[in-house]
Amino acid sequence: MIIDCHGHYTTAPDELGVYRESQKADLARNPDHQAEKGTVHISDDQLRESVEGAQLKLQRERDTDLTIFSPRASWMGHHIGNVSTSQAWTEHCNDLIYRLTRIYADNFIGVAQLPQSPGAPIDASVKELSRTVEELGFVGCNLNPDPTGGFFTGPALGDRYWYPLYEKMCELEVPGMIHVSGACNTPYWQTTGSYYLSADTVAFMQMLQSDIFKDFPSLKLIIPHGGGAVPYHWGRFRGLADMLKLPPLSEAVLENVFFDTCVYHQPGIDLLLRYSDQEHSVCVGNGRRRTRHRPGNGFLF
Amino acid sequence: MIIDCHGHYTTAPDELGVYRESQKADLARNPDHQAEKGTVHISDDQLRESVEGAQLKLQRERDTDLTIFSPRASWMGHHIGNVSTSQAWTEHCNDLIYRLTRIYADNFIGVAQLPQSPGAPIDASVKELSRTVEELGFVGCNLNPDPTGGFFTGPALGDRYWYPLYEKMCELEVPGMIHVSGACNTPYWQTTGSYYLSADTVAFMQMLQSDIFKDFPSLKLIIPHGGGAVPYHWGRFRGLADMLKLPPLSEAVLENVFFDTCVYHQPGIDLLLRYSDQEHSVCVGNGRRRTRHRPGNGFLF
Repeated sequence: MIIDCHGHYTTAPDELGVYRESQKADLARNPDHQAEKGTVHISDDQLRESVEGAQLKLQRERDTDLTIFSPRASWMGHHIGNVSTSQAWTEHCNDLIYRLTRIYADNFIGVAQLPQSPGAPIDASVKELSRTVEELGFVGCNLNPDPTGGFFTGPALGDRYWYPLYEKMCELEVPGMIHVSGACNTPYWQTTGSYYLSADTVAFMQMLQSDIFKDFPSLKLIIPHGGGAVPYHWGRFRGLADMLKLPPLSEAVLENVFFDTCVYHQPGIDLLLRYSDQEHSVCVGNGRRRTRHRPGNGFLF
Repeated sequence: MIIDCHGHYTTAPDELGVYRESQKADLARNPDHQAEKGTVHISDDQLRESVEGAQLKLQRERDTDLTIFSPRASWMGHHIGNVSTSQAWTEHCNDLIYRLTRIYADNFIGVAQLPQSPGAPIDASVKELSRTVEELGFVGCNLNPDPTGGFFTGPALGDRYWYPLYEKMCELEVPGMIHVSGACNTPYWQTTGSYYLSADTVAFMQMLQSDIFKDFPSLKLIIPHGGGAVPYHWGRFRGLADMLKLPPLSEAVLENVFFDTCVYHQPGIDLLLRYSDQEHSVCVGNGRRRTRHRPGNGFLF
C-alpha cells in the first residue's frame, strides 16, 4: 500500500475563498474584528467535482492508494487577523477535509490545519487538534513554525510555548508536519520557493538545538519538501551537532524526524534515498507533483 | 591551478575583536555614536602567526594553490550600529586582508567586506568596493542580502537599491559572493546552519524573479554553501520559473550565477557535480572544511 503523506486541498470550491475574503473585509474595517464561524455553503457534489479531476485523478494515474490530506498550506495565512479569525477559518477548512474523508473514505484521511496566530496562546490549536482527531478521525496536524508569515519573530520550536501541543500530539499519538503558509513580506520571500525551503531548514536546526525529543520521546515531526536543505547538507548538520556538543544526528533525530520525498528532480530524489538508506527515514509525497519515488524506502504513517 | 574561492579570515589576532568590542561599548553608551576609524595595532608577525597554522597549513595539506580571501563573514555584523560603525569596522577588516595578500602574494587574493547598514544608502559600499579593488587589488566583494541579521526586512536583490553597486561591480569586472553575517535573532536562527543556507536560497529566488541580469548582463554573483537548497531542489526552481512565466533557468541564470562546493558530505557533492555537469557552473571552495572535490568541474574566477 502506498500512502502519499503530503496532499493539500488546493482545489476547494470558490465559496471557501469568498468566505476568506469576507474575513479580510471585516478586518479591513476593524483590525480587532472578532470573527464568528458562520457558514460556508458547499454541496457534496461540489466537493466531488473539486477532487475528481485533480487529486483523485492523480492518485489513479500515479498508482497511490491513500492520500493524507490537509487544507491548502499557502492559504492557512496565520498572520491574518487574530486568533478568532484563524479559529473560524481553520474550522471551515478542516470541516471540508472531514467531509471529503467521508465521501472518499478509501482515498483520503485527514490532517488538521491549526488556528495559530502570532503571539496568541497555543491553546486554541490544542483544542482543534483534539476536535479533529477525536471527533473527525484525523491522523495528524500541520504545524506552522512561523505564523508571522516571513518575519520569524515567534518562539522557536524548542520553546516551551509549543509544549502543550506536543503533549497533546503524543497523547493522541499523531504526528505533525512542519509547514509554513504564504509569505506576506514579499518580494523578499517567494512562498513556494525560498520560504518553504528555508522554514523546513530552520525547523530542523531548531529541533536539533532543542530538548523536545528528550521531553517527548514519542513525538514525531515530518519536515516536508524533502527536508528543505537538510539532506543535501547532512554533513554540515552532522558537523554542527559535533561543534555544538549535541548528540550525533542519528541519536538526536532519527526516531522522531522524518522527511517526505517532495523533491522534483531525479538527482535530488536519488540523494535523499541514498542517504535515507543509510541514515534516515523518508515519507512518500507529495502526490500532487511527485517525482518518481521508490516505495520501499518510504516511511508510511 | 586550484583556486579556493571561499576563504574567510576566521583567525584574526585578538586585537581585532577588542576593537569591535570597543565599538559595541560606544554604541551601548550612545546608539547613534558616530564611529571614527582609529587604529588596530597588529604586527606582520602576528598576521603570519594567525594563518601559518591554519589557512596556509590547510592550503598545503589539501593541495590548493590560491585562496580568495575575505574577512570573517559571521563577524561582518552589519546590523550593529549605523553606517559609520560598519564603515570603520569594514575598513580595518579589509586592511588586514590586504596586508595578508602582500605578505603571502602567492597564497591569498583579497575579497572585500562592504560597509552595509540596514536602511542606509548603498553609496558607502560602492566606495569601499572601489577602494579595495582599485587601491588594494581585491577581486570581488561579499554582498550581504540581509544586513538586518535575520529579519529579512530590507530590499530584495532585484530592487534598484542595489543597482549602483551592481554597476560598479560590472565596471570593475569583479563578482560578488552573496553572504549573510551572524544571525542576531537567535534562537530562531542558527548562523551557520539555518541562516546561511536560507539566505543562499532566498538570494537565488530573488535573482530569478528580478531583472538584474537583463540590466547587468556581465554581473556575476556566487552563491556559497553549494547554493543553499537550490541544487537539491533544482526541479522545484525549474518548475517555478515555468509557473511564474520566467525564462528557463538555463537562460535566466546560467551566465551569471555560480555555486561553490562548500558541501560537507559526499552525497551532496556528488549531487552538485552531477547536476553541474549538465546544467551549471560550480566554484571550488570552501578550503577550510572542504569535502573532496573534483577540480575539473570547478569554475575558477
